[in-house]
Amino acid sequence: MTVAIYPGSFDPITNGHLDIATRAAKLFDKLVIGIYDTPNKPILFNTEERVELVKKSVINLPNIEVEAFSGLVVDFARKIGAQTMVRGLRMSADFDREFDMAMMNKKLNPDLELVCLMANLQYQFLSSSLLKEAASLGGNINNLVPEPVAIALSKKVQNKM
Amino acid sequence: MTVAIYPGSFDPITNGHLDIATRAAKLFDKLVIGIYDTPNKPILFNTEERVELVKKSVINLPNIEVEAFSGLVVDFARKIGAQTMVRGLRMSADFDREFDMAMMNKKLNPDLELVCLMANLQYQFLSSSLLKEAASLGGNINNLVPEPVAIALSKKVQNKM
Amino acid sequence: MTVAIYPGSFDPITNGHLDIATRAAKLFDKLVIGIYDTPNKPILFNTEERVELVKKSVINLPNIEVEAFSGLVVDFARKIGAQTMVRGLRMSADFDREFDMAMMNKKLNPDLELVCLMANLQYQFLSSSLLKEAASLGGNINNLVPEPVAIALSKKVQNKM
Amino acid sequence: MTVAIYPGSFDPITNGHLDIATRAAKLFDKLVIGIYDTPNKPILFNTEERVELVKKSVINLPNIEVEAFSGLVVDFARKIGAQTMVRGLRMSADFDREFDMAMMNKKLNPDLELVCLMANLQYQFLSSSLLKEAASLGGNINNLVPEPVAIALSKKVQNKM
Amino acid sequence: MTVAIYPGSFDPITNGHLDIATRAAKLFDKLVIGIYDTPNKPILFNTEERVELVKKSVINLPNIEVEAFSGLVVDFARKIGAQTMVRGLRMSADFDREFDMAMMNKKLNPDLELVCLMANLQYQFLSSSLLKEAASLGGNINNLVPEPVAIALSKKVQNKM
Amino acid sequence: MTVAIYPGSFDPITNGHLDIATRAAKLFDKLVIGIYDTPNKPILFNTEERVELVKKSVINLPNIEVEAFSGLVVDFARKIGAQTMVRGLRMSADFDREFDMAMMNKKLNPDLELVCLMANLQYQFLSSSLLKEAASLGGNINNLVPEPVAIALSKKVQNKM
Repeated sequence: MTVAIYPGSFDPITNGHLDIATRAAKLFDKLVIGIYDTPNKPILFNTEERVELVKKSVINLPNIEVEAFSGLVVDFARKIGAQTMVRGLRMSADFDREFDMAMMNKKLNPDLELVCLMANLQYQFLSSSLLKEAASLGGNINNLVPEPVAIALSKKVQNKM
Repeated sequence: MTVAIYPGSFDPITNGHLDIATRAAKLFDKLVIGIYDTPNKPILFNTEERVELVKKSVINLPNIEVEAFSGLVVDFARKIGAQTMVRGLRMSADFDREFDMAMMNKKLNPDLELVCLMANLQYQFLSSSLLKEAASLGGNINNLVPEPVAIALSKKVQNKM
Repeated sequence: MTVAIYPGSFDPITNGHLDIATRAAKLFDKLVIGIYDTPNKPILFNTEERVELVKKSVINLPNIEVEAFSGLVVDFARKIGAQTMVRGLRMSADFDREFDMAMMNKKLNPDLELVCLMANLQYQFLSSSLLKEAASLGGNINNLVPEPVAIALSKKVQNKM
Repeated sequence: MTVAIYPGSFDPITNGHLDIATRAAKLFDKLVIGIYDTPNKPILFNTEERVELVKKSVINLPNIEVEAFSGLVVDFARKIGAQTMVRGLRMSADFDREFDMAMMNKKLNPDLELVCLMANLQYQFLSSSLLKEAASLGGNINNLVPEPVAIALSKKVQNKM
Repeated sequence: MTVAIYPGSFDPITNGHLDIATRAAKLFDKLVIGIYDTPNKPILFNTEERVELVKKSVINLPNIEVEAFSGLVVDFARKIGAQTMVRGLRMSADFDREFDMAMMNKKLNPDLELVCLMANLQYQFLSSSLLKEAASLGGNINNLVPEPVAIALSKKVQNKM
Repeated sequence: MTVAIYPGSFDPITNGHLDIATRAAKLFDKLVIGIYDTPNKPILFNTEERVELVKKSVINLPNIEVEAFSGLVVDFARKIGAQTMVRGLRMSADFDREFDMAMMNKKLNPDLELVCLMANLQYQFLSSSLLKEAASLGGNINNLVPEPVAIALSKKVQNKM
């Protein structure tokens, strides 16, 4: 059975993430969305919330599992038996950092294959950070995120954010 | 009457900003420099100070107004009747983030046109953050900023910065 | 009266070009689409054909004129009384060359202001060269170009291209 | 059965291409290396030679097939029943053009998934064009290409190239 | 006597830095590694520790000296009589910021020549920040840093980091 | 004695090249400007003319020699006893190709050190190709090239170019 991991902070999951996950789920027998417990940046949703929002968003995709992890992503991949790691590439994302991480991960675990899917055109500009910024300022972001995320974001914003 | 907005943190305004504003003021009947009240990064000058410094710097440009704003820039543009938003492009600036913001703003308000002016050669390397770093370390930045800013920066630095 | 020039090879005009021209025509009293007579690359349509296709494509935009030119674009701009030059920016286009040309043009004519509009999301990937390649290989490019261009391209392809 | 296509000019195949093919062959049941018959650039080896050199290079990889094609890559993919297209990404390669092609292909055939593998560190700088340039000037490129290619290149160079 | 400065945070020094320093030491009579006292980012090792680790790493390179500095790098260069500043360039590093700093430094001290050496292939992906992240998560980074750094990093990690 | 090579097509030499050569000549005992005999692109000036124009341009720099070469640059460097190769870096130049060549050269001759100098701000946009294009269209390029080149270019242009 082919198992792949799609790791990230998912703070929160966007329609861009969901599109990558949906497409990746067709390429592998099982896709595990790995939610990084302690990302190196301030987060809006805690780990439990982020797991919950991803789970609700992929509820109709039977071969996707959702799990939080801490430590090195290559170690988590080994633990769950994933031979492949999935990343979404946006034209305007930090390709440099992506490359550095890819080479570092290759060094830490040469057996884990990295597979990059290109974001679809309508999600090229969509990042979680920009999304949170827009939402916090009152922007309507409803069609950029799964419905459960839209609800959760709107609650956070009302509670001052 | 054509109205354009030139938004930013202006912490503080540099000669590069001033050059963009001067050139943009020739393209439109009125240019409003919108000073973002709560930028998503640490600031050196508070909003009142930033507004004051910009006002002093554009005192000879009659069709420029200066105003602080909070919330979405597209909402502020709507409020002041601006059909166009102006941005300066530096070769070495973060074009990726600029693009993401442009597409997000287009989504939030499809009617607001974005117009980019290229920084002149002598200002290509000039960013507010690098300027503040140089000033805080004792670098002579007098010919990189309008005179009122040079004075204000030198006071901040003496007060330890 | 504000006059702007939108120069290029337009070999052939695409919906991306048309979108930029339409938006630019709202910013200025008159927009002249300048079709470069002898671009420094192989062309598919001769100058007369390119002018004709652009004219047919902008027939409903009353303040747009179409004219071929040779020599320096800054000289052509001077001749037609344009104070401003318009360029479309694509995320994936050669921003480096755009910058070099901008600075060279500034040197040759400091009074001509360059205004860049960002391509809309759906045209970010659309270049004339990729379009011609796809069309020559039998790809359906109908919704990427104005109708007169689709017809002309299909004739060229049948005549072997 | 999952079928993927790995298209390119392969003029000639390098160790970088071979590495991508080897890794991709592990991800899919069958990998078809599609050799583009009439690339839009001058070629050193004719189609027959390029097919032959690739075949010799992948002789030990049982689930790889080699086939020349003309026309659109998305049409060739459809013909051979490939659901996925593989591309190697080099840090220093033309990511912009890669992106444009990806979006154009998506438009021409939305069902074909693009999967990008990152070139391993030792092949990051290796392009067929640079390789041919070095070989033609007498550079030792033996450990950069499969052995059959090294022999063929050396013959071409002796015959003046 | 030609004197060059190789400035940086060196938090901590990596094999990539060491490679640049070793190569630069062949180009000049004396190379001073300048360790920036108060970099504009959180640091893991204090100045004394960073100086100590660099000293231990270059112990076999007789024409290298190690010194901490504060204030502008161009002022420190002047103080130690350096005519040249050395920087390592990584493909995936922030070339934009490097360029901005180079131009700012040129403005602050036009006489200081900047010399850039390209990181060797095996160190292209290696940054201090990624290294620290990997080490803190339990990754084996022994062959990416000089031995004294490996020991020091492992102690920091055990003390929670 | 330290010897460095500064290789290129120099078709023709610009003030940007001259600035790099002048600065490099201060770093080494001898600088050899190597003029590539058969660059992989169309040239305007033949080898003899290019050598002549460079010689006239550096006539006041006593430790610079000018020589044409063919074959690999690393072989030419070995022949003239150069330990170092100099390249100018422009922000908007093709850094990707520069990197590929650097790594390929490192592979072909690991002992040749590459030293990159950053173009000064006023030459950041200046490339030989853009220069020739502007000159051929009648642009005034007098202050962008050494005087002998201005004269030679103007003759070429009159002879139709």
